Amino acid sequence: MALVVHKYGGTSVADADRIRAVADYIGRARRRGDDVVVAISAMGKTTDVLERLAADVSTSRPGREMDLLLSSGERISMALLTMALADLGIPAVSLTGSQAGIITDASHQRARILEVRGDRVREALAAGCVVVVAGFQGVSTGKDVTTLGRGGTDTTAVALAAALGADRAEIYTDVSGVFSADPRVVPSARRLPHLSWAELLEMCAAGCPKPDVRAAEFARTHQVRLEIRSSFTWEPGTRVGPEEEVVEQAIVSAVVHEVGEAKVTVAGVPDRVGVSATLFGALAERDVNVDMIVQNTSLEGRTDISFTIPVRDLVVGLEASRSLRAQIGAADVTADADIAKVSIIGAGMKTNPGVAATVFRTLADEQINIEMISTSPIRISVVVHQADAERAVQSLHAAFKLG
Amino acid sequence: MALVVHKYGGTSVADADRIRAVADYIGRARRRGDDVVVAISAMGKTTDVLERLAADVSTSRPGREMDLLLSSGERISMALLTMALADLGIPAVSLTGSQAGIITDASHQRARILEVRGDRVREALAAGCVVVVAGFQGVSTGKDVTTLGRGGTDTTAVALAAALGADRAEIYTDVSGVFSADPRVVPSARRLPHLSWAELLEMCAAGCPKPDVRAAEFARTHQVRLEIRSSFTWEPGTRVGPEEEVVEQAIVSAVVHEVGEAKVTVAGVPDRVGVSATLFGALAERDVNVDMIVQNTSLEGRTDISFTIPVRDLVVGLEASRSLRAQIGAADVTADADIAKVSIIGAGMKTNPGVAATVFRTLADEQINIEMISTSPIRISVVVHQADAERAVQSLHAAFKLG
Repeated sequence: MALVVHKYGGTSVADADRIRAVADYIGRARRRGDDVVVAISAMGKTTDVLERLAADVSTSRPGREMDLLLSSGERISMALLTMALADLGIPAVSLTGSQAGIITDASHQRARILEVRGDRVREALAAGCVVVVAGFQGVSTGKDVTTLGRGGTDTTAVALAAALGADRAEIYTDVSGVFSADPRVVPSARRLPHLSWAELLEMCAAGCPKPDVRAAEFARTHQVRLEIRSSFTWEPGTRVGPEEEVVEQAIVSAVVHEVGEAKVTVAGVPDRVGVSATLFGALAERDVNVDMIVQNTSLEGRTDISFTIPVRDLVVGLEASRSLRAQIGAADVTADADIAKVSIIGAGMKTNPGVAATVFRTLADEQINIEMISTSPIRISVVVHQADAERAVQSLHAAFKLG
Repeated sequence: MALVVHKYGGTSVADADRIRAVADYIGRARRRGDDVVVAISAMGKTTDVLERLAADVSTSRPGREMDLLLSSGERISMALLTMALADLGIPAVSLTGSQAGIITDASHQRARILEVRGDRVREALAAGCVVVVAGFQGVSTGKDVTTLGRGGTDTTAVALAAALGADRAEIYTDVSGVFSADPRVVPSARRLPHLSWAELLEMCAAGCPKPDVRAAEFARTHQVRLEIRSSFTWEPGTRVGPEEEVVEQAIVSAVVHEVGEAKVTVAGVPDRVGVSATLFGALAERDVNVDMIVQNTSLEGRTDISFTIPVRDLVVGLEASRSLRAQIGAADVTADADIAKVSIIGAGMKTNPGVAATVFRTLADEQINIEMISTSPIRISVVVHQADAERAVQSLHAAFKLG
């Protein structure tokens, strides 16, 4: 008998029919003998609707009140799913994030889980119940409701699985797994049957939309086995676990791209100690999330620093960088939002030289100019013009025979 | 400096504009020097929408899950109002029923308030905040969320006012006070400037729709001064307080009617001890709320018992009565849903003989047949055919010169 955490996202519980379909599926898992804990998101676009409502009412939108507001969405869906289970004669109980013991820090709207107490979850499991837990939310040590930010229910599911020692977390969503590339860009992209934790984390960080990157990080740190699968077709999806279990280790598993970033270049900076610390310290203070950072070797005592940040942070990031121009002695600060990041990821890459060369040769053959390069042991990312992004993904997907 | 509890119903906070208007009004009360605690309902028809959603998903609808579901409506409105206050620079904090210490029994969907702890409300007031409390909800001693049933936010407001020793509770709604009759039926009906607690309670029990009858009862028991007024025109409304303060004690204050009841007659019952106990015990067991009860003097050892119950309980009530027919030896059990109850209420009635005679004479002149009569010291109620109800209200309103 396995203990499995199921996660259902907004599209999986978007209406009454979908909620009943999910209840029915959970019932079948119970009959197979699984103990089931569910982490559930708000129905469909509920969170968006609540955010628009808040924007209509208020410009200040204090974080504590936003969290109370947004957390109501999961209370609705969890109560409805629990009722649908009751209709099927399946004992079930719903618990808010607070009741389930999801303890977070006090950073409203992007709280981090500090601890999962889970006593009421364990009691309800012991009593033979399916436990339906509100995703995306917790309670701070100061007893205020907090939310974990977009995609937070994935993290709730993985954190619950870790705390309960579950056999795995099954992340049910509107796609049937993790693909070798975005199927809208590469029609021959295929679903990956297995990934290692490290590969999934690199893919999520490089722009793969599901699951949420924090959940991937939590899964890797706490060694929680995942399965990403569809709540529409219910077919087997992508399993994520230890590297040694990944059969047929591919050199490259997937090509991932992301278009939501902009590049900032701080040019002609004197090559002296503390410049980067000053620059990135100022960005961190303003909550600007820096992704890639590239610094060239200095030439005549001066160097260029380029970095990418989310487009939505560009105004703040550019202003912060420009305000430091005199202080750090930079010649110029420029920005380009017309970029895309394309990454190839594969656990086999670290033991296979020549992967980078193939990437650069492939892009050169396509006349695609590379603006920035950044690597990890199992990932190579390049920044290209946005107009070249889809061609870059398609040519790399073909070059590494991922189709 | 007064401490005032404001209650805002669903229509008062139905959309973003209305929420901002309410915030603005609370701001003016603060500038006048009032300390303000708000009890707020869910926006507009939110509770209806959630109930329909539950009906779409589930036929069993367990009470615990229904309460979790329905309580989310007030979390949304309270967070939005608090944000709107923050925009105006007014320190404010929202509290759920549980956080505000509204402790109830465990009767889901119609819980009764046992105690209002209110420590967090007092702390927030002491810190200079407007405190926005979710109406309609509390927490059971078993730590589950409960709801108080329809109209529950009125009770939340009055219970908070009592617990905090507030100067009064102002019940803001979509009507501008309590009227001498329903203005849709009697166009000359006028707003009553003052009512005693006892009069208000009788009026609510007799069918006056606002405020909720449990709130009126709570106000009388705990001597909480009320003002019923409009959140659209903000004009002065109806004040409710001790009888001795009601200026110009009218013999009759208002005519109230109600059409949602049905009459059940258990005919030819042997006049012996315990028959009524058996009959009404059985109805109470089935949660049928009996309103008027009339038993005639017995004739030849047999009597008729008539009572009124809500139309929605008619099937259950009739079944319960018929199942006892043999046991209590009744000749027949009949029902009539085509009735209306018309009541006149006035604190001055008890010292003015002849009021009942005027009622019966007025209805006789109108050729309106009276099916049942029931009285209290300050109320006379009659049951008539539903088709005669409006004429009965109009003629009584004129006869007692209430226009």
